[in-house]
Amino acid sequence: MDFVIVSAPAQSAIEIMENSAAKRVKVIHFYTAGFGETGGEEGKRLEEKVAGIARRSGVRVVGPNCMGVYSPQYGISWRLDFPMQKGGTVAFFSQSGWHATDSIKLGAARGFQFNKVVSYGNACDLNESDFLEYFTEDPETKIIVAYLEGVREGKRFLQLLRRVAPIKPVIVLKAGRSEAGARAIASHTGSLAGEEVVWDSLIRQAGAIRVYNLDELADTLLAFFYLPVAKQRGVAVIGSGGGPSVQSADDCASARLSVFPFPAEIRRKLHEFTPKAGTSVRNPIDFPFYWTSQELYQSIKIVAALREAHLLIAHISVDYLLTVPGGREKIGELSQAIMRAGKEIGKPLAMVLRQCGLLENYRVALEEQEKFIEAGVPVYPTIARAAQALNSMVQYYRFTDSFYRQGRIEVGTF
Amino acid sequence: MDFVIVSAPAQSAIEIMENSAAKRVKVIHFYTAGFGETGGEEGKRLEEKVAGIARRSGVRVVGPNCMGVYSPQYGISWRLDFPMQKGGTVAFFSQSGWHATDSIKLGAARGFQFNKVVSYGNACDLNESDFLEYFTEDPETKIIVAYLEGVREGKRFLQLLRRVAPIKPVIVLKAGRSEAGARAIASHTGSLAGEEVVWDSLIRQAGAIRVYNLDELADTLLAFFYLPVAKQRGVAVIGSGGGPSVQSADDCASARLSVFPFPAEIRRKLHEFTPKAGTSVRNPIDFPFYWTSQELYQSIKIVAALREAHLLIAHISVDYLLTVPGGREKIGELSQAIMRAGKEIGKPLAMVLRQCGLLENYRVALEEQEKFIEAGVPVYPTIARAAQALNSMVQYYRFTDSFYRQGRIEVGTF
Repeated sequence: MDFVIVSAPAQSAIEIMENSAAKRVKVIHFYTAGFGETGGEEGKRLEEKVAGIARRSGVRVVGPNCMGVYSPQYGISWRLDFPMQKGGTVAFFSQSGWHATDSIKLGAARGFQFNKVVSYGNACDLNESDFLEYFTEDPETKIIVAYLEGVREGKRFLQLLRRVAPIKPVIVLKAGRSEAGARAIASHTGSLAGEEVVWDSLIRQAGAIRVYNLDELADTLLAFFYLPVAKQRGVAVIGSGGGPSVQSADDCASARLSVFPFPAEIRRKLHEFTPKAGTSVRNPIDFPFYWTSQELYQSIKIVAALREAHLLIAHISVDYLLTVPGGREKIGELSQAIMRAGKEIGKPLAMVLRQCGLLENYRVALEEQEKFIEAGVPVYPTIARAAQALNSMVQYYRFTDSFYRQGRIEVGTF
Repeated sequence: MDFVIVSAPAQSAIEIMENSAAKRVKVIHFYTAGFGETGGEEGKRLEEKVAGIARRSGVRVVGPNCMGVYSPQYGISWRLDFPMQKGGTVAFFSQSGWHATDSIKLGAARGFQFNKVVSYGNACDLNESDFLEYFTEDPETKIIVAYLEGVREGKRFLQLLRRVAPIKPVIVLKAGRSEAGARAIASHTGSLAGEEVVWDSLIRQAGAIRVYNLDELADTLLAFFYLPVAKQRGVAVIGSGGGPSVQSADDCASARLSVFPFPAEIRRKLHEFTPKAGTSVRNPIDFPFYWTSQELYQSIKIVAALREAHLLIAHISVDYLLTVPGGREKIGELSQAIMRAGKEIGKPLAMVLRQCGLLENYRVALEEQEKFIEAGVPVYPTIARAAQALNSMVQYYRFTDSFYRQGRIEVGTF
């Protein structure tokens, strides 16, 4: 037998382990909770016994206290409502089943697909290092994501992380940044959170990308999933609205992107079809609502041709456009123009569909998002979040660049 | 005539001003753009002339280059789709018409009402100090919000800000934190952004609350709009999910809230109806999905009775509950239990409806949000944002507290 999933009470764990060893089971996943994470002596002893049988028998254990394995490609899932299309390129090992579940749902909502997700809970046998090693070698995995509470084999894990980071982006959500978080971890998976400052510098030095919550995880993942490589931080921003344009400049700067002023020649070109009142063609471009989709397309092409424009952010206000006559169609046309330009420019373009959250406006944004995703353009709810994701991506590619330049490893060794 | 709204071309501005002076118009709002914000000499001269006529004639000018006035109470609006119910207690003066518009929509989506909003653009006559002074005295205004690009009468503005902050919370979104932002401001309203570090410390020293984007503005506003006063940062967090609970602890700590450990006596009480496996009753509480709404209600009451619990955050996963049989009803029941407890405890309670953004899940979250809003409980999309808003609120009430203790002004002087 290849794979056993256990949701029987914790008290039956030893018997199940022994029977499985006799039947030469390869892997057991214990959904069951009530082990080390309770903090009680009995639970800890039980978990140690399970781990002991695993070591002796060679039966590998996922868990206990976790959701186990999701892999659409192999038809395995712990929920009926998870997407089951194949072809995802992201692998995720998560010490939290909730985070794993929430991330798969976020993928469905925002347009990225996992190939393999493993929720591994207390990690009494297989742990984060085993999963990281596996995903490093797995040819189907292009991007690795990790949610960590504690790390059992710290040295091994960091060695693996340093090895894989130059080859595949590794996005790490490490919990327990605070004392309160570390306490919550102790009663969640019984893990030791470790020193925040130590972990932070180790993750970054290894070349992994650190994120702080699931939304940022999804934002960052989207950038790696869809966008071409960029190694510089110059950004051209193009959208509608004075206040939003000012905000976009501040938000890009906060995310370390460089909103460079456009040269006079570019401004002149843009002014050929853009009036001066109520607009700006410096950078950010604040374009007038009566621009045609062709004018928007043309403008993106003009600014994307600049050497300093390594990244592009486009934004439209779904809220505003829905209030003008023919607004729904206008949203579709402007979006199409952005997608068409996005495909042609060969530089990373992130799209922002601004809306206030009213149901109808949200629905329209989702409809458009679906088209952007099909066109390979990631969509963000705010310019700040788009800028943050782009910066993380640039930072990673700068790291790989300097890594290979320094010849620290031979490319292609694994 | 009381109020004239002008959307005629900029070239006709002088004639309109002179005619209005002859007819003793009180206020003119110039929607018209094409003045100082273009950066051109002609536009600047025109704006100075308008301001000159205003000074001589006593006709006050809002704008130019702005949306003007929205006040549901007096039936004035610049858009047909704005909410027109009366009774709002928030006043907003915004140098950006887009931000003003977006914020009114955000209010409709999230459940706060403005009484008066003024978008004032280039501020050639009436400026931020005039509006701040007016809202300080306005008995219908309980909370003041400002979006600032530059401030024309800096000293006067700060004096006014220091005067009003101890009486009414003032939430300030000050743009131009970055060089790129300051450049964007120059071509938006022609304002001088000023030094970021100077502004930041002046705003904070005055006792105003600084926010950095419209979402944070709405988050903070919601807390002041609905919640009772709290002056300490101890928070009890109650919700479902191990990973989410750990995240909530980290997020609260990042927002400077204190997730204090519950005493043994409280844990014992909670364990009377909570099994040990897969849960935690420390703080955060990670409650099991099979808790009844009565058990959830009871738990909130138990922890809210703690002296150290000055604030409460409750969260449920709409995503998860929608996948269990009878889940939609369960969401309703748990929500009702939280609202009922929220009304009784007399302490600030913030609600978080966690969902991934899929349309159906979002729709359900909005349905529940409406009920929470009616019950006076503000709803946030993430625990991090709830925690941030609660911290801003506590910080403000701590400021007013120390202010009155030091007897720096006599209460009731205005």
